[in-house]
Amino acid sequence: MNTKTILFTKMHALGNDYILIDETRGEIVKEREKPEFVKKICDRNFGVGGDGVIFVSKSDNLDIKFRIFNADGSEAEMCGNGIRCFAKYVYEKGILRKKRMKVETLAGEKILNLKTKNNLVESIKVDMGLATFKSEKIPVKTKDKTFINKVCKLNDKKIKLSAVNVGNPHTVIFVDEVSRDYAEKIGPVIENHPIFPERTNVNFVKVLNPNEIKMITWERGVGITLACGTGAVASTIVGRKLGKLNKEVTVNLPGGRLKIEIYEKNNKIGAFMEGKATMVFEGILSMPWQ
Amino acid sequence: MNTKTILFTKMHALGNDYILIDETRGEIVKEREKPEFVKKICDRNFGVGGDGVIFVSKSDNLDIKFRIFNADGSEAEMCGNGIRCFAKYVYEKGILRKKRMKVETLAGEKILNLKTKNNLVESIKVDMGLATFKSEKIPVKTKDKTFINKVCKLNDKKIKLSAVNVGNPHTVIFVDEVSRDYAEKIGPVIENHPIFPERTNVNFVKVLNPNEIKMITWERGVGITLACGTGAVASTIVGRKLGKLNKEVTVNLPGGRLKIEIYEKNNKIGAFMEGKATMVFEGILSMPWQ
Repeated sequence: MNTKTILFTKMHALGNDYILIDETRGEIVKEREKPEFVKKICDRNFGVGGDGVIFVSKSDNLDIKFRIFNADGSEAEMCGNGIRCFAKYVYEKGILRKKRMKVETLAGEKILNLKTKNNLVESIKVDMGLATFKSEKIPVKTKDKTFINKVCKLNDKKIKLSAVNVGNPHTVIFVDEVSRDYAEKIGPVIENHPIFPERTNVNFVKVLNPNEIKMITWERGVGITLACGTGAVASTIVGRKLGKLNKEVTVNLPGGRLKIEIYEKNNKIGAFMEGKATMVFEGILSMPWQ
Repeated sequence: MNTKTILFTKMHALGNDYILIDETRGEIVKEREKPEFVKKICDRNFGVGGDGVIFVSKSDNLDIKFRIFNADGSEAEMCGNGIRCFAKYVYEKGILRKKRMKVETLAGEKILNLKTKNNLVESIKVDMGLATFKSEKIPVKTKDKTFINKVCKLNDKKIKLSAVNVGNPHTVIFVDEVSRDYAEKIGPVIENHPIFPERTNVNFVKVLNPNEIKMITWERGVGITLACGTGAVASTIVGRKLGKLNKEVTVNLPGGRLKIEIYEKNNKIGAFMEGKATMVFEGILSMPWQ
């Protein structure tokens, strides 16, 4: 039987976990076999288990190339948690020893800034780009140009909603206490409300002080997750817009912490996201499994 | 920082997946730290991920010792799927090169018979012991001595139930088609029915022919699982008792196949279970994680 041995590294960033494979010296998994391979090894019972697989390869124009596949075998454009794992991996394995990396992704060039100590990567900062509040671009079906702090009636209770797009649509609700039960009850109602024609992610945010928030996200099509990077960005940007937050905010998510740093550019608001990634183990697998 | 490196092997048997650690040359994880360690590495997002950890160690009186911890850190007595992984592991790693192993477990001595080919273990056969049909021992609250093929009314429909204890309590229902939806609807109703004071596992079984069945199990306290070894034994024994099955039966479970072989001893009915186990990958982890 034709057996194939593959080396990989398992990592996570705030609990989003990925299998990393180095293809900078050549293809390890054939292009046409990648979707099937990813599905197999991401299976949590029969395989290695993971939210996805990240392949590292050479870039023609930039420092290095990032490719990420979801557990279902589909290729994704970008992932904030995934790219932090990628940065720590390529730096610590010596594949690319730069503290400022220009990375090729399907979502375009991403610049990563690494903080290191004793050759270990302690955190990675990514420019998450600019946000838009324009209703038609979020999108929100309303006559108003923006949808900020709007009072809505849900299950006979009035709540204030704000909507923003930071690459994907988000709704932000400020709450007195962050409750998973409440998020699971209200999240899907807002996600599927007809005023959001492309549905929406829903963030429940408690302001601890102007420099710190606690939040939980109901992710569109997924449900409650350990850590939604774009949700942290959206919540901070909305909190800033409403005057509740400063420019640098620590965000506490169920899976861990992120730092969001807001900037302004051409009259628009954008954000950097900074957080860590963790090496869990090194693995060797031989396929087909026996 | 005090870093500890641990080698492990990840395996599965019908999708029940375990992390195996060899302690035959000495303790790798300190006894008092085992529960906490197991919880950490069984976490599927932040750790390695698994249904449990199996520690291999020396036995004072028998060939080798099997210990299994559940993902919640508690130590279990025995596990049919786990002990097959154990057998393949100790044989293929050269820890014990015997095709008939006497294994020390918290549930007493277990004898394993291995079938090998080219030094790879193709299947492992375990004596699952004797079953009892006595109502008070299953237990079932009834005036009848046994509870076999009893017509019960559930959700206004009549179904026939049989109960048996094969180390734990099982109910068997023969169906025309195996349906996950139906098992999820009816399973918890039977599991928690007051006639089963210690609740019950519930097996939905389709007889394909006298030598083959297809089944799905609603596990007590768990729900639908990929493969319940004792459920396969219980279903075959009940099918045999009712004259539906021969003595050697192939059981098709969602996670794969098992062979059940029925024997009689002192007027009681018992069974061997035979199935395979799969090596998924070799791993090296360094803790604390960075």
